[in-house]
Amino acid sequence: MAVFKEMLYGGDYNPEQWPKEIWLEDMQIFNDAKMNSATINVFAWALLQPDESTYDFTMLDDIVEMLVENNYQIVMGTSTAALPAWMSHRYPDVNRTDFYGIPHKFGHRHNACPNSPTFRKYSARLANKIAERYGHLENLVCWHISNEYSGECYCDNCAKAFRIWLKKKYDTIEAINQAWNTNFWSHTFYSLEEIVPPNYLGDGIPNGKASFAGLSLDYSRFNSQSIMQNFIDEREAIREFDPKTPVTANLMGAYKPLNYFEFAKEMDIVSWDAYPSFDTPFSYSSMMHDLMRGLKDGQSFMLMEQTPNQQNWQPFNSLKRPGQMRQMSYHAVAHGADTVQFFQLRQSVGAGEKFHSAVIGHVGNKETRVLREVTQLGNELQKLGGALLDARTPAKIGLIFDWDNYWALEYAIGPNVELKYVDQIHHYYKEIYKRNIPIDLIAIDSDFSQYDVILAPCLYLLNDKTAQKIENYTKDGGIFVTSTMSGLVDENDNIHLGGYPGPLKEVAGIWVEEFDAMPMSKKIPVHFTDTMGHGTLLCDIIHLEGAQAIATYGEGEFYQGMPVITSHSYGKGQAYYVGTMLDDQGMETLFNQILEATTLTSLYLPEGIEVTERCNDNGRFKFILNHLGKEQQLSIDIVGQDLLTDENVSNDLTVAPYGVKIIKLA
Amino acid sequence: MAVFKEMLYGGDYNPEQWPKEIWLEDMQIFNDAKMNSATINVFAWALLQPDESTYDFTMLDDIVEMLVENNYQIVMGTSTAALPAWMSHRYPDVNRTDFYGIPHKFGHRHNACPNSPTFRKYSARLANKIAERYGHLENLVCWHISNEYSGECYCDNCAKAFRIWLKKKYDTIEAINQAWNTNFWSHTFYSLEEIVPPNYLGDGIPNGKASFAGLSLDYSRFNSQSIMQNFIDEREAIREFDPKTPVTANLMGAYKPLNYFEFAKEMDIVSWDAYPSFDTPFSYSSMMHDLMRGLKDGQSFMLMEQTPNQQNWQPFNSLKRPGQMRQMSYHAVAHGADTVQFFQLRQSVGAGEKFHSAVIGHVGNKETRVLREVTQLGNELQKLGGALLDARTPAKIGLIFDWDNYWALEYAIGPNVELKYVDQIHHYYKEIYKRNIPIDLIAIDSDFSQYDVILAPCLYLLNDKTAQKIENYTKDGGIFVTSTMSGLVDENDNIHLGGYPGPLKEVAGIWVEEFDAMPMSKKIPVHFTDTMGHGTLLCDIIHLEGAQAIATYGEGEFYQGMPVITSHSYGKGQAYYVGTMLDDQGMETLFNQILEATTLTSLYLPEGIEVTERCNDNGRFKFILNHLGKEQQLSIDIVGQDLLTDENVSNDLTVAPYGVKIIKLA
Amino acid sequence: MAVFKEMLYGGDYNPEQWPKEIWLEDMQIFNDAKMNSATINVFAWALLQPDESTYDFTMLDDIVEMLVENNYQIVMGTSTAALPAWMSHRYPDVNRTDFYGIPHKFGHRHNACPNSPTFRKYSARLANKIAERYGHLENLVCWHISNEYSGECYCDNCAKAFRIWLKKKYDTIEAINQAWNTNFWSHTFYSLEEIVPPNYLGDGIPNGKASFAGLSLDYSRFNSQSIMQNFIDEREAIREFDPKTPVTANLMGAYKPLNYFEFAKEMDIVSWDAYPSFDTPFSYSSMMHDLMRGLKDGQSFMLMEQTPNQQNWQPFNSLKRPGQMRQMSYHAVAHGADTVQFFQLRQSVGAGEKFHSAVIGHVGNKETRVLREVTQLGNELQKLGGALLDARTPAKIGLIFDWDNYWALEYAIGPNVELKYVDQIHHYYKEIYKRNIPIDLIAIDSDFSQYDVILAPCLYLLNDKTAQKIENYTKDGGIFVTSTMSGLVDENDNIHLGGYPGPLKEVAGIWVEEFDAMPMSKKIPVHFTDTMGHGTLLCDIIHLEGAQAIATYGEGEFYQGMPVITSHSYGKGQAYYVGTMLDDQGMETLFNQILEATTLTSLYLPEGIEVTERCNDNGRFKFILNHLGKEQQLSIDIVGQDLLTDENVSNDLTVAPYGVKIIKLA
Repeated sequence: MAVFKEMLYGGDYNPEQWPKEIWLEDMQIFNDAKMNSATINVFAWALLQPDESTYDFTMLDDIVEMLVENNYQIVMGTSTAALPAWMSHRYPDVNRTDFYGIPHKFGHRHNACPNSPTFRKYSARLANKIAERYGHLENLVCWHISNEYSGECYCDNCAKAFRIWLKKKYDTIEAINQAWNTNFWSHTFYSLEEIVPPNYLGDGIPNGKASFAGLSLDYSRFNSQSIMQNFIDEREAIREFDPKTPVTANLMGAYKPLNYFEFAKEMDIVSWDAYPSFDTPFSYSSMMHDLMRGLKDGQSFMLMEQTPNQQNWQPFNSLKRPGQMRQMSYHAVAHGADTVQFFQLRQSVGAGEKFHSAVIGHVGNKETRVLREVTQLGNELQKLGGALLDARTPAKIGLIFDWDNYWALEYAIGPNVELKYVDQIHHYYKEIYKRNIPIDLIAIDSDFSQYDVILAPCLYLLNDKTAQKIENYTKDGGIFVTSTMSGLVDENDNIHLGGYPGPLKEVAGIWVEEFDAMPMSKKIPVHFTDTMGHGTLLCDIIHLEGAQAIATYGEGEFYQGMPVITSHSYGKGQAYYVGTMLDDQGMETLFNQILEATTLTSLYLPEGIEVTERCNDNGRFKFILNHLGKEQQLSIDIVGQDLLTDENVSNDLTVAPYGVKIIKLA
Repeated sequence: MAVFKEMLYGGDYNPEQWPKEIWLEDMQIFNDAKMNSATINVFAWALLQPDESTYDFTMLDDIVEMLVENNYQIVMGTSTAALPAWMSHRYPDVNRTDFYGIPHKFGHRHNACPNSPTFRKYSARLANKIAERYGHLENLVCWHISNEYSGECYCDNCAKAFRIWLKKKYDTIEAINQAWNTNFWSHTFYSLEEIVPPNYLGDGIPNGKASFAGLSLDYSRFNSQSIMQNFIDEREAIREFDPKTPVTANLMGAYKPLNYFEFAKEMDIVSWDAYPSFDTPFSYSSMMHDLMRGLKDGQSFMLMEQTPNQQNWQPFNSLKRPGQMRQMSYHAVAHGADTVQFFQLRQSVGAGEKFHSAVIGHVGNKETRVLREVTQLGNELQKLGGALLDARTPAKIGLIFDWDNYWALEYAIGPNVELKYVDQIHHYYKEIYKRNIPIDLIAIDSDFSQYDVILAPCLYLLNDKTAQKIENYTKDGGIFVTSTMSGLVDENDNIHLGGYPGPLKEVAGIWVEEFDAMPMSKKIPVHFTDTMGHGTLLCDIIHLEGAQAIATYGEGEFYQGMPVITSHSYGKGQAYYVGTMLDDQGMETLFNQILEATTLTSLYLPEGIEVTERCNDNGRFKFILNHLGKEQQLSIDIVGQDLLTDENVSNDLTVAPYGVKIIKLA
Repeated sequence: MAVFKEMLYGGDYNPEQWPKEIWLEDMQIFNDAKMNSATINVFAWALLQPDESTYDFTMLDDIVEMLVENNYQIVMGTSTAALPAWMSHRYPDVNRTDFYGIPHKFGHRHNACPNSPTFRKYSARLANKIAERYGHLENLVCWHISNEYSGECYCDNCAKAFRIWLKKKYDTIEAINQAWNTNFWSHTFYSLEEIVPPNYLGDGIPNGKASFAGLSLDYSRFNSQSIMQNFIDEREAIREFDPKTPVTANLMGAYKPLNYFEFAKEMDIVSWDAYPSFDTPFSYSSMMHDLMRGLKDGQSFMLMEQTPNQQNWQPFNSLKRPGQMRQMSYHAVAHGADTVQFFQLRQSVGAGEKFHSAVIGHVGNKETRVLREVTQLGNELQKLGGALLDARTPAKIGLIFDWDNYWALEYAIGPNVELKYVDQIHHYYKEIYKRNIPIDLIAIDSDFSQYDVILAPCLYLLNDKTAQKIENYTKDGGIFVTSTMSGLVDENDNIHLGGYPGPLKEVAGIWVEEFDAMPMSKKIPVHFTDTMGHGTLLCDIIHLEGAQAIATYGEGEFYQGMPVITSHSYGKGQAYYVGTMLDDQGMETLFNQILEATTLTSLYLPEGIEVTERCNDNGRFKFILNHLGKEQQLSIDIVGQDLLTDENVSNDLTVAPYGVKIIKLA
């Protein structure tokens, strides 16, 4: 399913902040830059609805009319990500209560309590009104509901809704007590009314830990689903008048509070906002794109927001270097984006984001570096047309990313404060990244059978069904790789008794008796057959129960000589267990061995060069990306034509600073 | 106008904390130390007024009587800086609500809500009663209202008062919406009632930033003026009985929440409390004195508080070294003080400041180093008599310090968290300081015409009127120096559209297209014609539009070779723009060039030696100050007589450790 | 008085978290490990009492029955350390209000307001019911009331109770005003109702300081006594049915909020929970054991909790190395423990401590390292039998540890933020520790006469009675050692006027005029007759008034050449004053000199080796402890028999890694 007919190129446009005479100037600039789309109406609720019963679409009509006249594809926002002040004032239930139990009054955005009856009524009604008015438009290509859904609420309405959620999930109070192991610290509940949200006034802890992880985990699920319900409310209200146009909400990478795999099921297409910092590793940016692509099983996504130049909310908002914005745009495309959009098209004159860059800066209609680069990109994208649309990434390695694990691992008190979920996932990702092998970030409930290798580091929380799936996958010939802190708890955060790694013991062929914890600054030698690396953070003490040790601890601790990495032949497959956090050398040795059994080939390229692949009915495309501001030479086995330059390419390449090649393979 | 007849020498005296028999002992010590003044009644509200209707001046009468008998000049406090407990208890509206929305109960000091009707009533009434009783006294030389006004309140009374303030300032809600650009994030207000104070429950951010800087800026102005109104309330209550005695409130240097330039207009004389830490740069202390002198356009100020020896509330409260207290006292005089006063004359026996040193320490009437040094200083000051009173500093360089800019620059989200207003001002100050050239800290609405050079670094917020004044000043032959982050926003914190630096573009003859941001730890080479320095923090990308580049970026970034410092001949004057934060070498090169066109001469002296000048009808006085605890030699072009030793001085000087010379020029 | 007949070996057992079929498996494991005791019913309130009027002991009956059948000694908890949810829900007065004035809802443990009438009623009633049911049991050896009493509450009930407490202590409001020096900052109170708890809404400061230390100090006393009253409530309720069985509450070393010396007077035996971190100095662990022994004047204590292996709530929860748990157990015994108990016997399946290790881990009934080590220890303890019970430590050095000083010193604002009470006590402790000389941690109201040397560093708060006792002690031949920051304030935190160190001036024979403060990173040379060391943190400027200087300041500051350490012959004794924080070299020189006059002999042993002594009617026992994981040789003057191996020992010893010898002297 190709969602769009051509690649969307444009971005957030907020003409309601400007006098109307400016609009025409803007359109001229966008047209010159070969833009073909605009996202509008993202933050305009207070303008559209000045009170409970009045709706005023005059200005939005004008904006739409102008865009239609200019043949723009429209991504239509619903404007519900920031409450109108009158609503906060008259209906305080719409305001959030924070982790410290403090009810807020009116400020910022993403400020609505997801379980506020008032908010749910008026947000859905607004979406409905907008759909009624604009849903029929031919230019409408996508609905953009709310904006960057985020945050938590702990108000009394949420508490009530949480109790209803619990009743539905567990039916009895006894089941809740068992799920949360409330006999610990005598927390036994006799009635739902006794249960309070796990914030600072309850069982939450300001550092992100939880006294009752089962409770906090359920609240995280509840909060994520509450916010997702806000999305569904609006989507359904839209569907009353527009049954077909794709619906999205713009996501934020590895944003913790929202289970995006669950959320993405409710969307037609995933979109996201890519805001790397000046020191974000390239591999991390790639991983985020891959995660977004993974949310809907490899379907193309929208790069809904990126900044044309510097951001404003980082500690140090460096400029994007000449060519870097273009390169980062293609970086997204290389990982699955079918759109290249900016936040924002025109820079705001005042308030919190006035130093966030835009296609049209504060200088207005004047020749700028940003405009030149945007225009170059626009011309290129126009040339590319729909060639790359809906292309897929042919990955044979799947890396599990799971929000339940994200939450549960980080709620756990112990064993090591430096253990962070996304860091651990990225640690494995970057080992594959540096080999330039395609990789998918996948949900825990994905179909594993399409992958040669499944990576599941820190698979801390694991239910029996998934454990069974892993066993079957491995038995059937899959390569399964897991690590320390895996198989520890069930879906309620209760330990799988009988020895670690719980339901993975059999497939891994080991028993982990203990795990030592240490600061990252401390390293333990890890000996492979011929080489060595180091481990840190955690050191599992492993007993072989069928597996073989492929590396053992070196000197320094009492577990010297004991297995640290194991390999187990299981059915037709192989299961690896990595009992520590390996350094780069160790990871390289390990994955050389793991990948040996596959047909996957590592491609080592100069630092800063990345190669990806996408395929569709038009052919196979290789993306060569230079993340660095210096020209690089590479010798690589590729023959084809560069879509950007029409040059034929074969093997020896020179890649310009921040250069990009999109080679259609011959 | 000479406010005092002789230099005040004394300090805060709190005999109400002591049994009366101690008082005579105290007086004897003060007399021996040649003190001639005492500040009394600073914290005694609860003693003076035990309930709503009772006032009891018995003890204050006794204290005043004793001071009069001993011919002391009296600085009379009004005692309103700390609420009586009974008032906090019976009238909770007097208590403040903090940034987090938490209403306080009773504690500390500076604890009154400035908009509390109860507080306003009783504070003015108390001042009135005290004026009625003591306003006629001949010994009374100054009113000292409240103490170290400070803090903010966010209670409902303040919210109401803020809405009235807004109504008065803007008249219509539409004007407010425009001023704050509320179309951003759909913050449009339809009624004043919807506006809430910008604290944590609203649009404030705990790190000091603001989602709506226009709103937060207005609240800062409102809060500052609310507290200033408390001062005016009391001043007016005093004036009913005492129309003439000068009125002051003791200030605190670059204290952020109060706009001291505005505040000083309401005072007859500025006074301040100088509490440098053991590692405060000498240039910073000098700058604070100069700022205090600048508050009333160069008029002498009072050094209301300094500590005779160690402080107590710093992390490390080092002793003042032998001679250092004396040297610091003269340091204040050298920069414009007409009084030398201490906090405190007798050290308290208990509570939060019991380890803050005093003229009479816990040991009581015993020979101590502090007493010896105080006595030496007292004798010297007696000898000096009124010679230095009301002397002015003959500065030809003005450095703009502006609270609107202080607030607005630091509310801004982006571009660089390490950008701090006072640091930037001090960065320019110290370049002049090390040349021993007199400099004034001036208000943005000052008369620029008296200065050869106006320095305006980080003149972020700039209204059209000031911009016009700058143009005129430069056109008429002035030298105007500004920097990156200047001319960006108007008085509402909305961007001056059309290119940076907004209304300074023409006078500076440049257009700034972009500014790169980086941590302080990163340096970019800056090439002048013959020398080089480095820049950091921000790097402006500058296009010349009439100006000349006097320095360009060195290698490392894509803006290599582009202008970083520019000079523009404008009318008869010259405008400089400094597009980065220069290191010391760069500053030296730059200012060598800037000052070349003036008659100002740099005087480089050994590290720790400072020279200042003051002039009055008695003559011209040069102060030679040694900030270090070692003897120093200097060769300097001065001929005259040292007022402290009566020695004739000519050119070659030996300055003792922490030594001071006050040379009346021949 | 020997409290137990044999050493208790066992720990916290929470079978209520497990299905009953597990219990028999557990008992088998405990029996195999030679355990003889179990602590039960520590967190079961919600199970025991499902509502106001129902009590259900069915499960506890079963647990007790099983333990009795297996001849276990029972330590019976009262289960009141965690509120039942129904009580928090129905009676919100049971919940605490925190330092920020935030009332909590339901969560964690140690969550009851100590002054809640509801909590006091139901906690005592529960203890009473349990005593009624189990108080007669022969197997019952100890009552374990609540658990790890801790925290503070600032609710309105506490405010009211505080006012009653104040009325009882001071009688008049005038006395309160005087005690707290409320004339400072005009805090004068006219009625008790005006006094509010000194939290963030009052005179408290988030960094732990206080504007009115007298008030905060009284609140600390009040809070400590309120919690102690909860203990007394339950103890008295127990005594109704069980007049004899010893009663304890498990303490936590140098836990700041509770005055353990006061608390211990209400207990029959002290017990505590030892949880060193991986980098806790050995000397610090020793000091904590000695403090616990000191709480009841040298009486043996219970090691109520230690972890069999890793903890979970440290940042890095390292494993205990093989042999280390055993060594740490004996370390406690070596310092006075008569029991070796674990938290916990079975690891919980879920919630906040699921990664805290246990005798029976998540793996269940399987051979583990922990079980092997526990079993070895069990066999050894069985062999030791009652040989060591009730042995005393023959210390002739007493080191004062005083909670009033702990609180008051740290409430003080100034002179140095790096000054921490426990650090300073430990600084002196470790100098004695490294000499392997027995030392007692003693209360300020102890009988000093049994000691040759009394160490009293930072004896900041000192009433006249104690000062008199110190004078008498010294006069009668004692050696008294005190330091900077001593003798400064009275019991109300008001300064002893007339010169520092207040009432210690005479015995010390000095007057301290001033004290300089500096960061730890700055060092000042200290010259003894032949050697030198360095001082830091504070440097007192001392005038000799009868004392002799035994060390003077070296160069660098103006007090160079002045005395820094003094010695004063006073009566038959000697008083030392140490005017700075000495480094290790300085401490060694100083204590060589101090101890010269005693019969105490320093025994320097290799790093990580510690020797202690205990004596009872069975003989004298020397403990040789190796804190390191490497074998060590030592030559030492000991002849006797190792109780653990029955080997005869004379002088030359090899101590295994983490090895222990308990030598009964011949």
